Amino acid sequence: MRLSQEQIDRFDTEGYLFFPGAFSTDEARVLKQAAEDVYRLERDEVWREKSGAARTAFAAHTYNETFRRLGAHPRLLEPVMQLLDGPVYMHQYKVNAKAAFDGDVWQWHQDYGTWARDDLMPEPRAMNIALFLDEVTEFNGPLMFIPKSHREGVYEAGHDLATTSYPLWTLDKAKITELAERGGMVAPKGPAGSVLLFHCNLVHASPPNISPWSRTIVYLSLCHVENHIRRFKRAEWIAHRDFTPIEPLSDDCLAALARAGQAAE
Amino acid sequence: MRLSQEQIDRFDTEGYLFFPGAFSTDEARVLKQAAEDVYRLERDEVWREKSGAARTAFAAHTYNETFRRLGAHPRLLEPVMQLLDGPVYMHQYKVNAKAAFDGDVWQWHQDYGTWARDDLMPEPRAMNIALFLDEVTEFNGPLMFIPKSHREGVYEAGHDLATTSYPLWTLDKAKITELAERGGMVAPKGPAGSVLLFHCNLVHASPPNISPWSRTIVYLSLCHVENHIRRFKRAEWIAHRDFTPIEPLSDDCLAALARAGQAAE
Repeated sequence: MRLSQEQIDRFDTEGYLFFPGAFSTDEARVLKQAAEDVYRLERDEVWREKSGAARTAFAAHTYNETFRRLGAHPRLLEPVMQLLDGPVYMHQYKVNAKAAFDGDVWQWHQDYGTWARDDLMPEPRAMNIALFLDEVTEFNGPLMFIPKSHREGVYEAGHDLATTSYPLWTLDKAKITELAERGGMVAPKGPAGSVLLFHCNLVHASPPNISPWSRTIVYLSLCHVENHIRRFKRAEWIAHRDFTPIEPLSDDCLAALARAGQAAE
Repeated sequence: MRLSQEQIDRFDTEGYLFFPGAFSTDEARVLKQAAEDVYRLERDEVWREKSGAARTAFAAHTYNETFRRLGAHPRLLEPVMQLLDGPVYMHQYKVNAKAAFDGDVWQWHQDYGTWARDDLMPEPRAMNIALFLDEVTEFNGPLMFIPKSHREGVYEAGHDLATTSYPLWTLDKAKITELAERGGMVAPKGPAGSVLLFHCNLVHASPPNISPWSRTIVYLSLCHVENHIRRFKRAEWIAHRDFTPIEPLSDDCLAALARAGQAAE
């Protein structure tokens, strides 16, 4: 997963990179099984939709062995360390469910908008890297990006406490319209195991999932260790306070579990 | 728009036919202008989302000249008369807005389910033909079909009075899952002016429109004159009671308005 100069340039221009099938079907399967395990837990970290379906499991790398390994996987860590030019820590870790029929909308937002406002992260020197645990199609609520929308810093936003079960700083309609007229819109789609890396200022959203197919995605939000957050307002399992550099594990750390035929708890 | 035997066979198998660009850009533009005119009206026929944005204008062919012409347009009428094998009347006429940002979901349903239950239409000898007034993309809430789901008649359904502003007989999750595993899912996309014809038992839905692009579609629900409804429970402008066969106008009836440069009210 060492990025080429062409990929680095494309990331700088468009704000994202997509790697269909970067993880094997077996690796994705063992992670999907782990996701189902954590969604069954009654923990503060597991948030639910208004319907009761799982929406997000936060910090699953701290209480599930399979997700612990994924949180230090070199195929996710190394490209981010390369782009951020140094060691990284885990700012946030989410297993987002977007359940069949019930998975609700995520409104238009920039992740760094929240990290700056709520957590006082000094610079947008942080990044998301996402791994699909299900096939993502046009039907099951894919992530929608506005390319090039990461280049002007943080836009004004309002704090939406009403639309879904999760509070979010969301952008207004006029700004989204302007950005989309300029940059267009994309919705990367691909098999389970695909990896999507995007700038923490890239404007994105995802529609509800009305299909019968679930759409689970793991998000690692990685931050350069020098750029750690300065305010501890949100729960520790939403905005982590352990700024230790992550040491990547070996590339086969999940394949070993997959061979053993089951997720580790 | 005379259908070939191959098209008729495909309709019987899949439950729908799609004709990208069947109407010209100019024809679509004059109709879009007419849609904006009718959405501004304060009439019982114009329904709004919970947000206040227009959702549907019913029976616009009865109070707008441009939509009157579309309601007798040979490019819409003739393929339906061919498939239903005889003269048709207008059972329902809707201009559905699916507004940018605010357009809400239509849950999984069969149109004939409603027509049979609410209106006592004797047979599924009726059909929808839809015309896109905006480009329909993967981003602005396209119609999603489950191919082949029209072949087993009407499925059980529950009357959903809560999800949106419009009451609808909707199918349960287990049935949708079973049908989609068998038939898959499609979401026809194309430019303004595209035409989509589908069986009145074909299971369909559409997700909310979270994009900055509106997605207006006109739906003509045409019924064989012998198969007219027997119960008049719903408003006359939702389920029409004029069973007179529609005489198709000339093919250039809208182009004439487009040349004149504006919609007729």
